[in-house]
Amino acid sequence: MVSFTIRNALIPVESGYQTVDVHLAGDGISAIGSSLEPLGEVVDGTNKLLLPGFVNAHTHSSEMWQRGRIPPFPLELWIAELYDGTPLDPEKIYLSALGTAVETLLSGGTSVVDHLVLIPGQELETIAAVVKAYQEVGIRAFIGPLIQDQSLTTSIPDGNTQQQHEPYYRNTADTLSLLKTAIAKFHNPEAGIHILAAPTGMQLCSDALFEGCVELSQQAQICCHTHLLETKAQQQLATEKYGCSAVEHLKHLGFLGPRTSLAHCVWLSDRDIEILAQTQSTVVHNPLSNLRLGSGIAPILKYRQAGVNVAFGCDGSASNDSQDLLEAIKIGSILHNITDFDYRHWITPRQAVEMAALGGAKGLNQQDRLGSLTVGKQADLVLYDLTQLSLLPQTDPIGLLILGRPVQVVHSAWVRGKRLVAAGKVTTIDVEALRQQLFEGSKDGGDRTSAMLAQVETHYRTVMGLNP
Amino acid sequence: MVSFTIRNALIPVESGYQTVDVHLAGDGISAIGSSLEPLGEVVDGTNKLLLPGFVNAHTHSSEMWQRGRIPPFPLELWIAELYDGTPLDPEKIYLSALGTAVETLLSGGTSVVDHLVLIPGQELETIAAVVKAYQEVGIRAFIGPLIQDQSLTTSIPDGNTQQQHEPYYRNTADTLSLLKTAIAKFHNPEAGIHILAAPTGMQLCSDALFEGCVELSQQAQICCHTHLLETKAQQQLATEKYGCSAVEHLKHLGFLGPRTSLAHCVWLSDRDIEILAQTQSTVVHNPLSNLRLGSGIAPILKYRQAGVNVAFGCDGSASNDSQDLLEAIKIGSILHNITDFDYRHWITPRQAVEMAALGGAKGLNQQDRLGSLTVGKQADLVLYDLTQLSLLPQTDPIGLLILGRPVQVVHSAWVRGKRLVAAGKVTTIDVEALRQQLFEGSKDGGDRTSAMLAQVETHYRTVMGLNP
Repeated sequence: MVSFTIRNALIPVESGYQTVDVHLAGDGISAIGSSLEPLGEVVDGTNKLLLPGFVNAHTHSSEMWQRGRIPPFPLELWIAELYDGTPLDPEKIYLSALGTAVETLLSGGTSVVDHLVLIPGQELETIAAVVKAYQEVGIRAFIGPLIQDQSLTTSIPDGNTQQQHEPYYRNTADTLSLLKTAIAKFHNPEAGIHILAAPTGMQLCSDALFEGCVELSQQAQICCHTHLLETKAQQQLATEKYGCSAVEHLKHLGFLGPRTSLAHCVWLSDRDIEILAQTQSTVVHNPLSNLRLGSGIAPILKYRQAGVNVAFGCDGSASNDSQDLLEAIKIGSILHNITDFDYRHWITPRQAVEMAALGGAKGLNQQDRLGSLTVGKQADLVLYDLTQLSLLPQTDPIGLLILGRPVQVVHSAWVRGKRLVAAGKVTTIDVEALRQQLFEGSKDGGDRTSAMLAQVETHYRTVMGLNP
Repeated sequence: MVSFTIRNALIPVESGYQTVDVHLAGDGISAIGSSLEPLGEVVDGTNKLLLPGFVNAHTHSSEMWQRGRIPPFPLELWIAELYDGTPLDPEKIYLSALGTAVETLLSGGTSVVDHLVLIPGQELETIAAVVKAYQEVGIRAFIGPLIQDQSLTTSIPDGNTQQQHEPYYRNTADTLSLLKTAIAKFHNPEAGIHILAAPTGMQLCSDALFEGCVELSQQAQICCHTHLLETKAQQQLATEKYGCSAVEHLKHLGFLGPRTSLAHCVWLSDRDIEILAQTQSTVVHNPLSNLRLGSGIAPILKYRQAGVNVAFGCDGSASNDSQDLLEAIKIGSILHNITDFDYRHWITPRQAVEMAALGGAKGLNQQDRLGSLTVGKQADLVLYDLTQLSLLPQTDPIGLLILGRPVQVVHSAWVRGKRLVAAGKVTTIDVEALRQQLFEGSKDGGDRTSAMLAQVETHYRTVMGLNP
């Protein structure tokens, strides 16, 4: 019955750390105690730290093909470069999902939220490709097909310049129908695959699309996810588009709630923060992407003080440009120390672990099943090797895991009770073959000039008040 | 004569990248070209990127013993915790210097500036311990014995509270005499060991100590290094102590100049920035430490626009808490995108490489010998493996190296023409034995309560205007 016994592992307790044994039975944690009977496969936890798996709570897996390539640009121009280079091949989509899963796993993540760019005309094939990849690796996946019904140029504020926009190639009804099909075909929580209702964001979606997503999420009992107020330009756009803040408008549409997670949330007012708290919405903080794109510092300490749940994400690899979740947690913790002079408000390493694990689970309505070392919860666990150079000398294991730069410290990882990493290696797929395929698949790599960039840059500089 | 031929390595050139062969002869680069004759040991550079070694331009090696341990505190309280736990054993100092050198090397650094905490009464033994460590690893080292002549409590502004301070245990003349002995005994540039005149900072040093350092630096032709305006509290202290800015005062003392590097420089005025530019001083940017301690964001884009040379440092491992130089370069590049809305001012990955290599060399008066791939310069080189998962897919190699999260990508490294890393492993010391020694040496690890912290916290909160 018991599949694994993890012996002598260090776990955090209120007063410090404790050494325990842990039984994993089926897909769950069946016992935590001292001197448990060794049953099933015994894993030596000596000099190792056991934590609940973290959630990479916002990413776009296919951006891996463009990581490192896009120069320093703000979101609105960066995205023009991105769109010109998005892969149009389900096989590539499959490979970048494998890569995203591997990097997430090897940096402490056992769940990934993939806000997935869809290949036009091959939308279901795109979803099928990432489902295949995540099932093969074994990581728990929350896939939000990236849907919108307005074209890219509408995402830049007009600024009274009377811009004309092309209609989007697919209408709202067809878009919602696509999501409905995706839910029917792929949503399978028991197998660790969840579909999310995930409109791109207010900058590219109609009210009807948001409302349709809310309806589908209620029918299918799925969670909602979207980008929200990532940039100053979007804040300005919301005023033009709604005459109120984007948060107020999304509340009005019924999109906010305890099953909704919102990526970025950089440009919110104190009133907006109150609304997030009232609706029990979750903020997904993507600190590295917010710096890379110059979006700003999300007011995370204010969120925490207002009681808003916060999780961490890497964001897509073209805006970070990595899926190292521990790096996102480190920077997402220490970045805020410069926003509040009173150090008593700063995020401690233990609080960061809780945000990354339980905070991530809450935003996906999984707080009863994931996010803590609790008997009865799912066995989504990570065992860190405290004898690796980057975690030495022995000091405070969680302090060094979060504030250091851990390298190859994940000794073992389990998802749904299945062991995916052993002795630092992913056991479920051939990572060497993946490396070879990523290498071969990018031989055409190199600089390109984006046609769309030239088209939008002049308008962007004008409307944002930058010198021509 | 030629010791190494690196064949088919990618190097950056103005228009992109070029594949070249490189000859290393003795301690220098003797040829760069296409199809050079394979002489000496041939190293295959295929699918590898060759860059000049970076400079870890500010750290404190012995802090490694406390990394991960100190909770989120601002500098003035953090340092009270630090002082209580500084190792008092030259053997431990030796081990943490080895660890600092290894982490620096494996993240692209070939030079390290160690602003070295001295064991009272064993000052020369402390320096001897790190010299031994750096010589064994083979990394180029710039060792600045951390000297001061005022006690720790003087570093917090008085705020009209008439604080009394203990005199420092060693007087100014003895301190300068100690530095003089250290220079005579250890300064040996030909062997890759440099001593710096490195007073701790204006918050702990008298004018006489600064002036004595300037005199010794001129006599011995060595460089100067100090902490400068890391925190708001220090800015306030400078006003109390000098009645002018700390930069104006250091200029007046003759401490600034092209052979002086200044760690942090967070709280400078525009006028101060002009002085740094006029005196050709170098700023060492320690972004991770500045975030961890809540010090603020150094105005690096302003420095660059004013023509001030900027280098990158990790800072000591108790305030970062790692010696991964690539992480410091990444965050030190993207952090500033949120300080200037015009993306045309943002630091590009190629500019970051130049800052980390040539910028670091300039601050140590080594620009004629280090910092670029130039025939005649010293062979301080790093070869990155572009087939590692974290550098795939193939896009822009420098873009991904700087903006990604490279893991185990240093294939080879040379310092003074000697190969220190091969196939990803440090070849000059036994890293496994080092791990074991760091592990054994920290078995007493755990939480302590700092006596000094309680002593200074109340006064700090009062004078900085924080609620009691």
